[in-house]
Amino acid sequence: MERQFDEELNDLNEKLLHMARLAEESVAKAIQSLKSRDEDLAQEVFERETDVNLLEIDIDELCMRLLALRQPVASDLRFITSAMKIGSDLERVGDLAVNIAEVSVDLLKIPPLKPLLDLPRLASLAQGMIKDSLNAFVNRDEKLARAVCERDDEVDSLNDQIFRELLTYMMNDPSTIDRAVGLILIGRHLERIADHATNIGEDVIYLVLGKTIKHHIEEIRREAALKTEQK
Amino acid sequence: MERQFDEELNDLNEKLLHMARLAEESVAKAIQSLKSRDEDLAQEVFERETDVNLLEIDIDELCMRLLALRQPVASDLRFITSAMKIGSDLERVGDLAVNIAEVSVDLLKIPPLKPLLDLPRLASLAQGMIKDSLNAFVNRDEKLARAVCERDDEVDSLNDQIFRELLTYMMNDPSTIDRAVGLILIGRHLERIADHATNIGEDVIYLVLGKTIKHHIEEIRREAALKTEQK
Repeated sequence: MERQFDEELNDLNEKLLHMARLAEESVAKAIQSLKSRDEDLAQEVFERETDVNLLEIDIDELCMRLLALRQPVASDLRFITSAMKIGSDLERVGDLAVNIAEVSVDLLKIPPLKPLLDLPRLASLAQGMIKDSLNAFVNRDEKLARAVCERDDEVDSLNDQIFRELLTYMMNDPSTIDRAVGLILIGRHLERIADHATNIGEDVIYLVLGKTIKHHIEEIRREAALKTEQK
Repeated sequence: MERQFDEELNDLNEKLLHMARLAEESVAKAIQSLKSRDEDLAQEVFERETDVNLLEIDIDELCMRLLALRQPVASDLRFITSAMKIGSDLERVGDLAVNIAEVSVDLLKIPPLKPLLDLPRLASLAQGMIKDSLNAFVNRDEKLARAVCERDDEVDSLNDQIFRELLTYMMNDPSTIDRAVGLILIGRHLERIADHATNIGEDVIYLVLGKTIKHHIEEIRREAALKTEQK
């Protein structure tokens, strides 16, 4: 019984890693389709979406079965509920890759705005965060998970810079508007992919420590208690 | 013991309803701040965010406790895992309201582009979906949940229309670029709020039926089985 449960948990790990790989590849392909102006790559992203979606449902069903049949407690319980959350984050990463590929297909119909340098850099930052957050999960590596969360600021500031640059482009030359808006949307999608990686990092820290660091909860609670004391 | 469990489940219901109300009000205030050019309303949205975040953590902790101590099965188990997912969707709705309020504060520094009609309409559609999805949840109302999911298309097409109109605005008069881009971003945020309501609707259907309708899973599995047969 115990051994079978371990096998099921391993199976869950494998499925999540597989799903993360698919989602990360979709992001890479979506950006590559834009960079090398290759619509086939965007098509691959659309076709891939179903696989990512099915994996989320598989993972969810496996988790529900484990919760019902194994009645796990403590760290096993945290592992299973974290797995459900991570599955839902990865599904959204897959969706966002599709959104990027959709914009890319539109942009391929018109001449490119300029050689893309910053967006691919933003994409590889976001992909790296997804990859590392999943590695942190399977290895219960709290330090790596924290490092992922910290990288989110770098993504936000690179995206802000891209946003401002594109706004200037449009203002200087209104004929670039449709292209620049498309690239702005892609930047936002990449920023959100990094947010999902950050969510996963926070889940890993919760899994390892048994307490949440989301929203700097301890600070907030301390402040709230202080306010109540002062009243 | 049984009665105490019922009370805990009720408590969970109440917390989710409260959280939904806060999130929905934040969306309303964020849009109102833009419409009536009132920065104070945007400030209220920023201040409200902590409450929404704390509620998510409360709900999560309560769910983990119920899973560990009550070892629920069948519909109680589905109820608790759905509650965790809904909490996370509502937290994101709160975040998106903050994003809208942030854009609004920026836009208040410059003259308005035009009287806002379509964005407030989009906002009330999205708010209505959040409200109804939570009503569907507490009343286990599958029909209402399906109606919420169906309204997502209306939101998408209204937002597409807004997007195209703003693009035309910018092209005809480049001096509107910064304002139009701001409004495009707000439209996207509202569209995502509606997506979260749709997620909640899907969770309610799963809760009631005991099977998922996400991603039209049955269709996809039937097609996959057919393909395998044909090989």
